[in-house]
Amino acid sequence: MENQNPVFIPGPTNIPERLRKAMSVPTWDHRSPEFGRMFVPLLQDLKQPFGTTRGDVAVFTASGTGGWETAITNTLSPGDTVLAARYGMFSHRWIDLCERHGLDVKVIDCGWGEGAPIAAYRDALAADTDHRIKAVLSVHNETATGVRSDVGAVREAMDAADHPAMLFVDGVSSIGSMEFRMDDWGVDMAVAGSQKGFMLATGLAIVAASPKAQAAMETAQLPRCYFDLRDMLAAGGKGSYPYTPAIGLIEGLRESVNMLLAEGLDNVHARHFRIAEGVRRAVAAWGMEVCARHPELNSDTVTAIMVPDGFDSTELVNYANETYGVSFGIGLGQVAGQLFRIGHLGQMSDVMALSGIATAEMAMKDLGYPIELGSGVAAAQEYYRANSAVAQRKTA
Amino acid sequence: MENQNPVFIPGPTNIPERLRKAMSVPTWDHRSPEFGRMFVPLLQDLKQPFGTTRGDVAVFTASGTGGWETAITNTLSPGDTVLAARYGMFSHRWIDLCERHGLDVKVIDCGWGEGAPIAAYRDALAADTDHRIKAVLSVHNETATGVRSDVGAVREAMDAADHPAMLFVDGVSSIGSMEFRMDDWGVDMAVAGSQKGFMLATGLAIVAASPKAQAAMETAQLPRCYFDLRDMLAAGGKGSYPYTPAIGLIEGLRESVNMLLAEGLDNVHARHFRIAEGVRRAVAAWGMEVCARHPELNSDTVTAIMVPDGFDSTELVNYANETYGVSFGIGLGQVAGQLFRIGHLGQMSDVMALSGIATAEMAMKDLGYPIELGSGVAAAQEYYRANSAVAQRKTA
Amino acid sequence: MENQNPVFIPGPTNIPERLRKAMSVPTWDHRSPEFGRMFVPLLQDLKQPFGTTRGDVAVFTASGTGGWETAITNTLSPGDTVLAARYGMFSHRWIDLCERHGLDVKVIDCGWGEGAPIAAYRDALAADTDHRIKAVLSVHNETATGVRSDVGAVREAMDAADHPAMLFVDGVSSIGSMEFRMDDWGVDMAVAGSQKGFMLATGLAIVAASPKAQAAMETAQLPRCYFDLRDMLAAGGKGSYPYTPAIGLIEGLRESVNMLLAEGLDNVHARHFRIAEGVRRAVAAWGMEVCARHPELNSDTVTAIMVPDGFDSTELVNYANETYGVSFGIGLGQVAGQLFRIGHLGQMSDVMALSGIATAEMAMKDLGYPIELGSGVAAAQEYYRANSAVAQRKTA
Amino acid sequence: MENQNPVFIPGPTNIPERLRKAMSVPTWDHRSPEFGRMFVPLLQDLKQPFGTTRGDVAVFTASGTGGWETAITNTLSPGDTVLAARYGMFSHRWIDLCERHGLDVKVIDCGWGEGAPIAAYRDALAADTDHRIKAVLSVHNETATGVRSDVGAVREAMDAADHPAMLFVDGVSSIGSMEFRMDDWGVDMAVAGSQKGFMLATGLAIVAASPKAQAAMETAQLPRCYFDLRDMLAAGGKGSYPYTPAIGLIEGLRESVNMLLAEGLDNVHARHFRIAEGVRRAVAAWGMEVCARHPELNSDTVTAIMVPDGFDSTELVNYANETYGVSFGIGLGQVAGQLFRIGHLGQMSDVMALSGIATAEMAMKDLGYPIELGSGVAAAQEYYRANSAVAQRKTA
Repeated sequence: MENQNPVFIPGPTNIPERLRKAMSVPTWDHRSPEFGRMFVPLLQDLKQPFGTTRGDVAVFTASGTGGWETAITNTLSPGDTVLAARYGMFSHRWIDLCERHGLDVKVIDCGWGEGAPIAAYRDALAADTDHRIKAVLSVHNETATGVRSDVGAVREAMDAADHPAMLFVDGVSSIGSMEFRMDDWGVDMAVAGSQKGFMLATGLAIVAASPKAQAAMETAQLPRCYFDLRDMLAAGGKGSYPYTPAIGLIEGLRESVNMLLAEGLDNVHARHFRIAEGVRRAVAAWGMEVCARHPELNSDTVTAIMVPDGFDSTELVNYANETYGVSFGIGLGQVAGQLFRIGHLGQMSDVMALSGIATAEMAMKDLGYPIELGSGVAAAQEYYRANSAVAQRKTA
Repeated sequence: MENQNPVFIPGPTNIPERLRKAMSVPTWDHRSPEFGRMFVPLLQDLKQPFGTTRGDVAVFTASGTGGWETAITNTLSPGDTVLAARYGMFSHRWIDLCERHGLDVKVIDCGWGEGAPIAAYRDALAADTDHRIKAVLSVHNETATGVRSDVGAVREAMDAADHPAMLFVDGVSSIGSMEFRMDDWGVDMAVAGSQKGFMLATGLAIVAASPKAQAAMETAQLPRCYFDLRDMLAAGGKGSYPYTPAIGLIEGLRESVNMLLAEGLDNVHARHFRIAEGVRRAVAAWGMEVCARHPELNSDTVTAIMVPDGFDSTELVNYANETYGVSFGIGLGQVAGQLFRIGHLGQMSDVMALSGIATAEMAMKDLGYPIELGSGVAAAQEYYRANSAVAQRKTA
Repeated sequence: MENQNPVFIPGPTNIPERLRKAMSVPTWDHRSPEFGRMFVPLLQDLKQPFGTTRGDVAVFTASGTGGWETAITNTLSPGDTVLAARYGMFSHRWIDLCERHGLDVKVIDCGWGEGAPIAAYRDALAADTDHRIKAVLSVHNETATGVRSDVGAVREAMDAADHPAMLFVDGVSSIGSMEFRMDDWGVDMAVAGSQKGFMLATGLAIVAASPKAQAAMETAQLPRCYFDLRDMLAAGGKGSYPYTPAIGLIEGLRESVNMLLAEGLDNVHARHFRIAEGVRRAVAAWGMEVCARHPELNSDTVTAIMVPDGFDSTELVNYANETYGVSFGIGLGQVAGQLFRIGHLGQMSDVMALSGIATAEMAMKDLGYPIELGSGVAAAQEYYRANSAVAQRKTA
Repeated sequence: MENQNPVFIPGPTNIPERLRKAMSVPTWDHRSPEFGRMFVPLLQDLKQPFGTTRGDVAVFTASGTGGWETAITNTLSPGDTVLAARYGMFSHRWIDLCERHGLDVKVIDCGWGEGAPIAAYRDALAADTDHRIKAVLSVHNETATGVRSDVGAVREAMDAADHPAMLFVDGVSSIGSMEFRMDDWGVDMAVAGSQKGFMLATGLAIVAASPKAQAAMETAQLPRCYFDLRDMLAAGGKGSYPYTPAIGLIEGLRESVNMLLAEGLDNVHARHFRIAEGVRRAVAAWGMEVCARHPELNSDTVTAIMVPDGFDSTELVNYANETYGVSFGIGLGQVAGQLFRIGHLGQMSDVMALSGIATAEMAMKDLGYPIELGSGVAAAQEYYRANSAVAQRKTA
């Protein structure tokens, strides 16, 4: 905590100085007109990283879990059926949250390392001829396994089955970093969090709701108040807030969106790909494998790296933290001990990524992994050189 | 927003520099052992401002409204009856929240400016011979009216009726500033917020649960997940967190509790009384009245001041903000237009309070109120002089 | 130190949040091109608060004393004669600095409370028929006595005597707050400091040199290196710095000048007059006198208030600090014990000023001064009301 | 400027978060007793990194150049002779500063990359039988070449010649990072800067004066006022300051010294050696040479790396900055174009150092240097692994 090393956890990210400052504000009156003057355009601009023009965005003081809760309690009723796939810890937890709210969750269990099971979704939807399934849940970027799913294909499966269910997507670790096309993919509820692609401290759950989801709010019977989206959208439209807002985080979000839009979302996505690809080259140079089963599943915000048989990834992560003062992500749930994760989202640079790769190498070597020092670094360097920020810019 | 004037809203407060810094932290790994080393003792120390040794404290990323939701969803089941009194906007909103969660709320409506209706509570409880009432709700300090209620007397009423209901108390604008005796008063759920007595930014709902409330968690059927107190208490006990914590706010809370305990809670309470009393002297010198119907109801964190007939307090508050760059609180709900509020909690000093009083005088004079400039200031000065911080210290 | 009360010392001022942030920067490379891209236009823009288009500005890491040293060592030679008037502690110290550098200072001693002695200057210059006087020194705003001198009249006296001496002016506590017309007044060296009208932390001496002063640099024999203006101007012109610059302070200065120019210097000056006038009304209401001998000498950045016979102003200042946590300025030198000073420069607002006035009243009353509580506050309120920021804006 | 990459310039360093916060303070009254309560013990504690108990320390608002000026103007008179060696840009500039102050500097010119020329010093002193040399100047750590000189040997040479001259040492880029033994080495004036080993922003020149130097102050005739050490030492002893101090930087220095002493100066020095040695291993792995002519001359705060014939180090440094957003130091003066410098002082960690090494590799490869990617990283990793912070601690 007392060093200046970057963190390599898959969120919260290394907070840019500009956002550190934007978030740290003296108290001012959230009921004054200044609040609305900031908040209304922010809610509009937030639509861009979600890829929506038709949906509306709301900002809650909560972590991503609160965003999940917002999505379901505002649109569903006790006993409703939802279809979900489990392929990592976060898809698992969202399912658990649904069950705690009395929903009947049809779970498609997949291998951890796989993405959203398109065929299985399609089959389940096709079989649901009386349309008991009210919502399909999908985690866009499974932070636990470094897997990005094809949400567009989920939508296609739903359309193929001609199924009227809503589509809810967890984009907590993708939105703001990786392409997200809410309207094109027909997403009805999308959930993001301040501490990931928005590069802020934890504390805001950002939720976008399609017109269809908003219509569902009128009949949904699950109880909610703190996460009541009707209140929040109605207040937001008028530049107010239903209760006391976390004004510093919201000022930070304003600045974060400014940064993302100034850079251009396409550039932001390309940058994340570039940093991630360097890390993947390093993994390959180590002779190790990522958790994602196919290259097209690779996440650009987090890479989950399988450790060789006989090694314990939790020990590796703890060791790196204690010995080198660098935090990586451990394996969670089913993959505990089997993988460690390098988060590379937000304002991560190739220079910072190289220090993470180099540290991982030292820690693995120290613990007897069959690794050659510098090998992953060299592979990443080779990639970053050829695809440097400047090279990138010049060809843009 | 671009000046350095203090705010006089009844929370969020003027944030002390030390807490500005404590809250603003680079990202560090909340899953590392450092987190528990900070968090476990913090949860212990937090018991002191709540006045409990038997209860346990949990910290959620939310505003106070989330604390209310935590209190009821963890202990009650759909259709349960609760008894509540409405004597201001915040008691009203908590009732609304209960109703949205499908609870049957027996509402005792009181005049705004009155405190918790002890006799009415007693009668209602005595009449409830089959103990359908599962919980009694009481707002300790009604921020909308500047009224502090006698929670101990509520407990006595419950005991007099020999009623087994739980007692839930909103201490959002009192805990950390005014005396709160959770154990002595037999409170089962108490709710506080980071942005009031703890002098932090908005973002943490702090909830203490008695053993009885914790027992009720086992059978309560209201759905909850984000605000699930079992998860939070279990995690807290081990120094972890069920999801990503708002680590900056928690570091701020650690420092805030350090400050409160170093000053001594009795001294903190005495300081709030002293500042508040100066404001009340000013009101009296103006020939105006506070909303609180009896002096013993006066809150020490916020003073609500009735404006004379023919004047509109909302206009006054807007005018002061626009003309002098100073924020006061408007009247809410029933008392909209009829009162304005001077918040004086947190690190407010007599010097700062005097500038608020002086500004209110100018704004009132500008708008034609029958007020003598300097009169309230002089009355407050007289009181502060005789009871200055130093005098206070010397006689301590 | 642990409260949020404003300070009322005549600099350093209460630092605006925006400047707190601007000054606090991570290290970046001052030899990179970014430095020049910031610095070159800053040096240009700085000419405006100095009121010069012909002069050039340099920024040294030093306090104002370093600015004085810059002015003389770059333009004079050992044994040179300078003419100076002493009418307060700061004019005294500049004289002392000259003497330590081996200059022959012809001192015109004035009463403290008087301004620059125009007639005496004129007589001395007229008598200096062989033009041995190389420079005339004048303190524009004597911080020790709250006196603003008429620099234009000094120039007229010089011109009347047809004397070729240079004119050096200490504008440390005026530039950026009060009108300063370097070109119109024929000032050759003007000295300002970051911690006064620029509202920053102490650490930058800002010096403007006329073409005549710059010509004198070529022949001046006083040794200098750290404060060598030739190096600094040459480097500044190329966007570099002769040694390591205080980059955070310079970024702060960039933002400060942005703020001043956005508000408009005329508005800045009018604001300072308004705040100051309120303080002066309070002093009059107390039945006390300011140190400045004539109203036209009143400074708009600091008011020096004579205490009644039998009272000790140092005791008053210490008492206010210990009892109320508020800092005023003590009397210095000849006027030690006889006056206390209220600094009201920078981002001071009427609201803040009122708290200073109110605190002074309490402290004086506590110490037995024959003062009526609230009297000064009321007088200031009356003035501020009629001349509020908004009123000001509306008539602008 | 808009990334979070570390800087690798040899000062200012990457500022620790704790010091960022310590330096950023609201204004408080530097004439209040709090100032002395902080400042007096700070001046005492500062003696430790200087390695003195007999000397006294003063803190000026200036950069290191101001420290040089302090050393000579307080102890010497116009025309005095000083003996100095030139072996880099900073020794050169100090000589220039002396000459501008009218001193007669006997310069021993050495190759850049060599250290203090002990034999030449001895010969010159032995030849100076009438003791015209009043002071010997030596740069302990020549930042331009990455060379640490043996100051103890300079003292031995002086003693061998039985010469009474004073010994003045520039420790700007060593004190606080590398061992400095003022008393043992018989140093009379030692100069440090806030932005190097003290890890702060630029702005404080920290000077220690031996009793002998302090005695010389009484007769020295060079003019000085801003840098008058008598005023500063006298004020410091009483906890005051001769003019307005840079209070934020001084608060930062207080915290910095706390950090250094808590870690233990021996540990601080060992840490700097460890980080530096890793960088040197990388240079060796690249098949390149450092500027320092012998291994015992290697600096532990900065490594200057000779580029192969045909390459231009300035181009390399600019390229790395533009392409990868990382700042290294260029070659200065005689060695311009011939070397680039990696600064690794302050809170630099092995993890950060590896990112600098990796970046240098990419930039060199891009520009056609005959370098193998990852080779330097691997060499540094190997060293850091075997000498990690933890390993270090365990064997301590």
